[in-house]
Amino acid sequence: MFRLDPAFLATSDVLASLALCEARLQLDARFPWIVLIPRLESVVELEDLTEEQGAMLLSEIGAASEAVRRIGAALGRPVEKLNVGQLGNITRQLHVHVVGRRPDDPCWPRPVWGQGVAEAYDPEALERAKAAARLALAA
Amino acid sequence: MFRLDPAFLATSDVLASLALCEARLQLDARFPWIVLIPRLESVVELEDLTEEQGAMLLSEIGAASEAVRRIGAALGRPVEKLNVGQLGNITRQLHVHVVGRRPDDPCWPRPVWGQGVAEAYDPEALERAKAAARLALAA
Repeated sequence: MFRLDPAFLATSDVLASLALCEARLQLDARFPWIVLIPRLESVVELEDLTEEQGAMLLSEIGAASEAVRRIGAALGRPVEKLNVGQLGNITRQLHVHVVGRRPDDPCWPRPVWGQGVAEAYDPEALERAKAAARLALAA
Repeated sequence: MFRLDPAFLATSDVLASLALCEARLQLDARFPWIVLIPRLESVVELEDLTEEQGAMLLSEIGAASEAVRRIGAALGRPVEKLNVGQLGNITRQLHVHVVGRRPDDPCWPRPVWGQGVAEAYDPEALERAKAAARLALAA
């Protein structure tokens, strides 16, 4: 049975249930950042996916990319580059990060993972970010 | 016309021409690490790929994953986790990193990108790594 690793509950908020993945907003106001977690049991690596699941994941990475761009626009910080990563060194349950980057963000040009400390959203910006993402993901 | 960004020539060695991508060994003995560069002009993000190109890339990420595992085995450091990343903050030409990780590697559990300094392979290990990767990529 699929069960979301508790680590995701602590660090992200639900955005949408897509065909394959749970899409969640990473609670780090430094970057527009969506995490996709396929609703599959005991899956750790991309190579564990069937061809069909891989195609669905790729399509949902595309949707999350657009959503991340919309979050950036809604917060007045348009995304200039996307970073997509599947790491899982700490939380093994397969998940893919889709992060919007800008040359003026605090980690540029390094990756965001394991850099510095997450910054809390202020409540109004959080609602704006979630609304923008959900609208994009529903399209 | 497709032209490999010179940055790749300086930091990696050719392994194989796959159906979509050039597969290259990253010249950093700290990690078994393959870079895939689609032979496409002016492509920067995953969302720039057609559905068919995306499926090819995913299949080649699978092949590179297996090749990275074979490099790790050939060097006596079996891969315990794969890290796959598409960043491009510095070199914009679309490329995907497939990196084999171990809890005893010098960056664990952080990502490898932008961490520390690449370590040169000794010539014998380099040949062994390339041979193992080429055998896997030819399969």
